Amino acid sequence: MSAVALAEEDEVRVRFSALRQKQFVLMDKFSELKARLLELTHLSSSTALLHWDLETYMPKRGAAARARSLSSLAAVIHDKFTSPEFEKLITELKSNLDKGLLGEAEACVVREIWRDFSREKKLPREFIEELSLTTAEAHHIWAEARRKSDFSVFRPKLEKIIELKRKEAELVGYKNSPYNALIDVYEKDATAEEVSILFEELKNFLVPFLKKIESSKKNIDTEILKGDYDIGKQRELSREIAEKIGFDFEKGRFDESTHPFTSGFNPEDVRITTRFDKRDVFPAISSTIHEAGHALYEQGLKVKHFGTPLGESRSLGIHESQSGLWENLVGKSLPFWKYWYPRLGEFFPEHFSKISLGDFYKAINVVRPSLIRTEADEVTYGLHVLLRFEIEKDLIEGSIEVGDLPEIWNQKTEELLGIKVPDDARGVLQDVHWSGGSFGYFPTYTIGNLYAAQFYSAAKSQILDLEEEIAGGQFGHLLEWLRKNIHIHGKLYSQDELVTRATGEKLSSKYFIDYITKKYGEIYGLKT
Amino acid sequence: MSAVALAEEDEVRVRFSALRQKQFVLMDKFSELKARLLELTHLSSSTALLHWDLETYMPKRGAAARARSLSSLAAVIHDKFTSPEFEKLITELKSNLDKGLLGEAEACVVREIWRDFSREKKLPREFIEELSLTTAEAHHIWAEARRKSDFSVFRPKLEKIIELKRKEAELVGYKNSPYNALIDVYEKDATAEEVSILFEELKNFLVPFLKKIESSKKNIDTEILKGDYDIGKQRELSREIAEKIGFDFEKGRFDESTHPFTSGFNPEDVRITTRFDKRDVFPAISSTIHEAGHALYEQGLKVKHFGTPLGESRSLGIHESQSGLWENLVGKSLPFWKYWYPRLGEFFPEHFSKISLGDFYKAINVVRPSLIRTEADEVTYGLHVLLRFEIEKDLIEGSIEVGDLPEIWNQKTEELLGIKVPDDARGVLQDVHWSGGSFGYFPTYTIGNLYAAQFYSAAKSQILDLEEEIAGGQFGHLLEWLRKNIHIHGKLYSQDELVTRATGEKLSSKYFIDYITKKYGEIYGLKT
Repeated sequence: MSAVALAEEDEVRVRFSALRQKQFVLMDKFSELKARLLELTHLSSSTALLHWDLETYMPKRGAAARARSLSSLAAVIHDKFTSPEFEKLITELKSNLDKGLLGEAEACVVREIWRDFSREKKLPREFIEELSLTTAEAHHIWAEARRKSDFSVFRPKLEKIIELKRKEAELVGYKNSPYNALIDVYEKDATAEEVSILFEELKNFLVPFLKKIESSKKNIDTEILKGDYDIGKQRELSREIAEKIGFDFEKGRFDESTHPFTSGFNPEDVRITTRFDKRDVFPAISSTIHEAGHALYEQGLKVKHFGTPLGESRSLGIHESQSGLWENLVGKSLPFWKYWYPRLGEFFPEHFSKISLGDFYKAINVVRPSLIRTEADEVTYGLHVLLRFEIEKDLIEGSIEVGDLPEIWNQKTEELLGIKVPDDARGVLQDVHWSGGSFGYFPTYTIGNLYAAQFYSAAKSQILDLEEEIAGGQFGHLLEWLRKNIHIHGKLYSQDELVTRATGEKLSSKYFIDYITKKYGEIYGLKT
Repeated sequence: MSAVALAEEDEVRVRFSALRQKQFVLMDKFSELKARLLELTHLSSSTALLHWDLETYMPKRGAAARARSLSSLAAVIHDKFTSPEFEKLITELKSNLDKGLLGEAEACVVREIWRDFSREKKLPREFIEELSLTTAEAHHIWAEARRKSDFSVFRPKLEKIIELKRKEAELVGYKNSPYNALIDVYEKDATAEEVSILFEELKNFLVPFLKKIESSKKNIDTEILKGDYDIGKQRELSREIAEKIGFDFEKGRFDESTHPFTSGFNPEDVRITTRFDKRDVFPAISSTIHEAGHALYEQGLKVKHFGTPLGESRSLGIHESQSGLWENLVGKSLPFWKYWYPRLGEFFPEHFSKISLGDFYKAINVVRPSLIRTEADEVTYGLHVLLRFEIEKDLIEGSIEVGDLPEIWNQKTEELLGIKVPDDARGVLQDVHWSGGSFGYFPTYTIGNLYAAQFYSAAKSQILDLEEEIAGGQFGHLLEWLRKNIHIHGKLYSQDELVTRATGEKLSSKYFIDYITKKYGEIYGLKT
């Protein structure tokens, strides 16, 4: 080999080694980021346990100290996340991301964290404290207003909250509507414009469809569900159903709380709760399946990615799609109850031996416009959400005044659901969200239902005899499909990418509309 | 007034104001310390909840992540406690303490925190990590050795632990024996010399007293306790007893765990656990009373002092005195069972209707030398502790070798208890403490029993008809006495001051000896 060739080879070596050197430095930085995120996630998991305990087992008088423990932990997390060292690290990695130097997985981590970090940095500590103080007070005042059924009690606080949320939007920045800066917290990349289009399609379908149902004059007897159901047996059956659809009790728990919820500390410790009603067994079953749906998502996240966005659920909308899919598309379907109705009869023979599966199926699927969102059926639920979305968007954009809320609420309820609101408690004051400053949260419920229908439709087309499987008490293939197409990806893909990979197209209202049309067309004997 | 007088007055004012200025600065510093301590305590409470959950409700697979969450929290607490800002603050306050500028309460806070802080500062991070890693591994190895009943499996790890604990003593510093640096963690100010004197007195009494009992040839039938006791009923009764002696369920919980324990997150959230044995109801009752005794102490600490040493239990010895007093001096006494035995009979009529109170009382107080410390009676318990104290002191002082432990253990057991140890599992490997690096912990059990007898004797002399009250199911005056004399003081006084204020003299073995002599003299019909 000539001297020149040798020198050239040396040069290549040097260049190669410089590149490798750079890559090692980058890998080191990325490892440091992962270690810091893991620590933050463990601290957040600890916070989540404090919350879970607060809702389930904490003694009455423990509340005051618990609130302080929670705020101490929140301050630790905030300080670590916005520390100069963390800022330096994430800023450096972000510049490497922008240069295209990161692989797909690393890019996802840095992109997601950078987004959260930038948002957090834009909000001054005093602003966060003011908001947190205001909403903490507002919670009590809202509860009092609801008890008194008097919106005027809540009005000044709500005005203050909206002022702060508009300020938040200004601080964070947005395109088009300030509402976009808020919905982004719950459903990244979602915009008021896109949501409006989907919701408009839904409204144009649901309002006339509901009228059709009402004019069908079909009378569904829901009184048949009423009874006296032993709580112990309800618990046992709910547990059995959760286990059968795939909830892993070695990696989770099942408890009771006033408001059912799911808390995933990590994929190997995911806890659901439900509530029991002595007079009706269905609410406990239904809410168990709903929470189990959330929990299956959390248990399906990859343990090895725990601590990074790759090991986190994609968005609230996707999360609600998982609970909604199991609760409604599976748990309120005829195939599901073909399997479970005999079992229900074994638990409560004195009650269900007199009732046919068909009558039971219709009773649990009755469509009836009602005042309370959380008690609404599949058809009217979307209208409740639509109403809230329109109002909160207008509030944040400043096109309506807080003082006019009760009137607007009642008017829209009549327009969409055809019923009169008798008082504020069952009207504008029914939900906790706004008192906590959660604007932009409501749409995720409906977005979730749309995703659910689209996912289920895809799963049905890909799994041979899915409904026969369900009717046979087999849920493994469906869960596997959800795991493979949704759960294991964490935040690797955006919602758009995720749904396109799983179903072949972006989110569309059509699957939900088709599902509702078919199911309720059959139940109510509508002409199609 | 003359010009001179006016000038003098001005000077006084100036001096006074300079003093006040100084005092304000000092008060500010002290407030900052309290705020930092409160935050640290809330973080420690969060850690305690993670531990509680781990022992009670955590699903099986949650263990791995939980360990990481716990270590993340521990690191946060350590970093905050040893931060340069914290060091500056506590050092400044310590110099004011040394100058005598602090009031009694402030002085207590600064003195106690300074002590903990100095100890923590003397231990390098690498040392703490090595110790924590070694003991974490040692725990599994000890468990394996115990399962195999083979000390040689555990030996190398124990040697390593003792090497580290001796190093710890060197780093921390000590007078006379390195053991003093270790016992100090559990029982501040206690020394091996003092403990040795007390334990020697005890040994000189217990060994011949046990021989007397054995030669009394009195046969107590403990088989009468055996039965088939419904766990639900055991739970109900245990709960009732805990409540009756003063455990406040609005400020606490009662659950089940493999090893009973008490966890006080704050005075308004104190949780106890117990375990149930289907064949015998007494262990559950007894361990409930023991834990309730700990819990009454925790619930009796002042809420307003939460976060500072003024709101913390004095020492492990004092803590054990509270559990021991309720478990033994109250819960194994005849007056106590005069009240509770009829109630026990209502819960388990098929069992206890055939047995007299006298026979029951004797059965639960049987004295029988046995191999396992945690199953020992009041008379032999002290001998189990004595044996461990002598051995661990010699180990740390280097006068015996780890390799000789089984032989020494077995020899001492025969000497003190008169029984042969059949295997390591029921001998030197029975306790978890050493595998966790807890040297100096064992003596606090006996110190607690001595305090308990001394406190109870004082309470009896100060409360008119205490035993009649107990026989009537009234525990309020006793609890009030404990609250007033012990609980509310937190760490304000040293153990010596505390016991002297409450009982008129320093800790003495005489009350325990008198108590045992009288009680067991009666049960075994011994001549006095």
